[in-house]
Amino acid sequence: MEASEYFKRVGAAARDASRVIAAAGTEQKNQALAEIGRSLDSARSEILIANKLDMDAGRDKGLDSALLDRLELNEDRIAAMIEGLVQVANLPDPVGEITDMDYRPSGIQVGKMRSPLGVIGIIYESRPNVTIDAAALCLKSGNASILRGGSESINSNRAIAKCIKKGLETAGLPEAVVVVVDSADRELVGLMIASPEYVDVIVPRGGKGLIERIANNARVPVIKHLEGNCHLYVHSDAILENALSLCVNAKTHRYGVCNAMESLLVHEQVAAQFLPNLATAFQEKGVLIRGCERTLSLVDGEAATEADWYEEYLGPTISIRVVDDIGEAISHINKYGSGHTDGIVSQDYSLARRFMREVDSGSVVVNASTRFADGFEYGLGAEIGTSTDKIHVRGPVGLEGLTSQKWIVLGEGHIRA
Amino acid sequence: MEASEYFKRVGAAARDASRVIAAAGTEQKNQALAEIGRSLDSARSEILIANKLDMDAGRDKGLDSALLDRLELNEDRIAAMIEGLVQVANLPDPVGEITDMDYRPSGIQVGKMRSPLGVIGIIYESRPNVTIDAAALCLKSGNASILRGGSESINSNRAIAKCIKKGLETAGLPEAVVVVVDSADRELVGLMIASPEYVDVIVPRGGKGLIERIANNARVPVIKHLEGNCHLYVHSDAILENALSLCVNAKTHRYGVCNAMESLLVHEQVAAQFLPNLATAFQEKGVLIRGCERTLSLVDGEAATEADWYEEYLGPTISIRVVDDIGEAISHINKYGSGHTDGIVSQDYSLARRFMREVDSGSVVVNASTRFADGFEYGLGAEIGTSTDKIHVRGPVGLEGLTSQKWIVLGEGHIRA
Repeated sequence: MEASEYFKRVGAAARDASRVIAAAGTEQKNQALAEIGRSLDSARSEILIANKLDMDAGRDKGLDSALLDRLELNEDRIAAMIEGLVQVANLPDPVGEITDMDYRPSGIQVGKMRSPLGVIGIIYESRPNVTIDAAALCLKSGNASILRGGSESINSNRAIAKCIKKGLETAGLPEAVVVVVDSADRELVGLMIASPEYVDVIVPRGGKGLIERIANNARVPVIKHLEGNCHLYVHSDAILENALSLCVNAKTHRYGVCNAMESLLVHEQVAAQFLPNLATAFQEKGVLIRGCERTLSLVDGEAATEADWYEEYLGPTISIRVVDDIGEAISHINKYGSGHTDGIVSQDYSLARRFMREVDSGSVVVNASTRFADGFEYGLGAEIGTSTDKIHVRGPVGLEGLTSQKWIVLGEGHIRA
Repeated sequence: MEASEYFKRVGAAARDASRVIAAAGTEQKNQALAEIGRSLDSARSEILIANKLDMDAGRDKGLDSALLDRLELNEDRIAAMIEGLVQVANLPDPVGEITDMDYRPSGIQVGKMRSPLGVIGIIYESRPNVTIDAAALCLKSGNASILRGGSESINSNRAIAKCIKKGLETAGLPEAVVVVVDSADRELVGLMIASPEYVDVIVPRGGKGLIERIANNARVPVIKHLEGNCHLYVHSDAILENALSLCVNAKTHRYGVCNAMESLLVHEQVAAQFLPNLATAFQEKGVLIRGCERTLSLVDGEAATEADWYEEYLGPTISIRVVDDIGEAISHINKYGSGHTDGIVSQDYSLARRFMREVDSGSVVVNASTRFADGFEYGLGAEIGTSTDKIHVRGPVGLEGLTSQKWIVLGEGHIRA
């Protein structure tokens, strides 16, 4: 079948199914999640066989070890997928929540009801466990989903799709509540992002290049996660012992994550006292420093270029700049940062308030590690991704981020005068 | 100057100014609004002279009377602009509001802070009073704005822009907090909608064609108002006296507005009793009926075509369909409606709940006129427009719709384990 014909069919089915899942009660949705888990559990061997096909093909194709690692499923990962379904079922249902019902002078009562977005398109890499994660979060938030994983995972996704279908069926829901795109045709991505009649929002998961390409060509709203060029700013009055452990944690806890610190700003009054100790700690961990002139007068490292201030290293490198005051720190972050997560280390009440207000990022942190910027740490229970956009939702995106609010008006025959 | 060079300059200035206005306190913003009002007041004659230039040119160009009416300024309209500024100043400041600060098991405290979107681009018709409305709402919500009004209003907008500039200056704010685009070059619209580095969101105001064109070509998020194909559904148990006055109000209170009823659905059990009375009332008002077969067996009118169910007449015509039950009514609304405002007339508790939950529109109304869907009626104080989108904001968009929420994390040196 041609890609456009295929997409028209599954798109229309997902649109219809979105009406059913939007109206479905919490119990039915939780039952579907449990049934999908049961199906996964009894299809373990089929899933592992399908995954082996993908892994073999991936090796033949010369995928690197990081990609193969993401592609691989094993007993532990299947167990984690099943456990994830249980966790999502345990989360409170955001749909239908009514708030702020106030009476107006006209006599009508007006407030808001939380409602699903409709059909959510997820475009992601060859990571078959994401198929279950994304399906579960969209389903629980009352949305239909169209899931388009990387082509290298097509056999794994087919096996998982079968389990999802069976679970939905057992719970009495239409199978198109979760459409796992069964085609490696790249044209489908183009169709998904340009079909507002079938898709209400796109959540791409992958590298910056992929997401930018999608955002630039989309005719459907996109919730983007571009990158995490996260900062800490150590003010002159910081408790330096805290500052040291925060910097080490934010930089070295995990290197390849989007909420790792990539750039450090230090007030000039404490730079001489703080940076040598930090450099020692970083040296022990093997972290390389790219510093401004003032930084390099205090510690060893390479000279930072303009490009370094924009860089998300995702590895054991950090850029460090000495600044004159908090104003310079905030300007630097708002200019070079990526709007992901940025923090201040200071005991000053007014400066902390100013930093929170003026730093234009999805998460703004005071005296804590940037590594906390995460759906689980924030209490969302799970996350579909992190937004570096400003409209609709910022930072970690949980179930609520997959909904919006419509207005509810209650009257007793009220007409407008 | 070339359009692209001009836009780069004003875009960068607006981006810089957005940092200043985001950090500005409520008092300074209100002072700016008051000063702009004072400038308008003392520039009345200059504004009217400039507007006469636009009106004369518009007449020469052969603009129709509706367009000329929107273009025209007079003493009353200037007074209304000044009064609008006072009203916006009196609204509560949404920026900086902190909510939901909960402690997490890790010991950090996490919540949300309401923050401006940044730079808002408004593209609108030749209606110079919108320049002040839009400037005021963006400013109060802590956003810079780039305002691009229709080319026929350029002299009026120049005169108004001078007043805005003077008001901002007197209040100690940079003039680029409000950029009134001083060029009729159409290329500027293209630049505005494709420059995420300068513009965070576009709010177009105008006809459906214009907005669709903008949305299809935008690389910046767009808050759209496409159209208002609004419905009322009269259930079999409706208090028919209420239903009659609601239908007459929703259809005939004003014809050319987006929250007027364009389509009526009536339960088959009350159609014979209700529709003849309604037809009489509509006949008195000169409203033409386009009905389904069952409707036309009860009242006079033309046969409705498939296209009629999609139509926003914006005039004294209504489509009427008799339906078998509420399920058919909801399906009809979700299929043919525009997601603007739709209502039910019924005394049934469970059906009212079901209708609210399942109708996928920005406003869902129970036993009240669709005409209430309006920022002032909802208590927003003012509105920049109405959204028929689903992400970010639905229905009337006030100050809160021009903001979003960032996460705030407070710790005492907490690191992630």
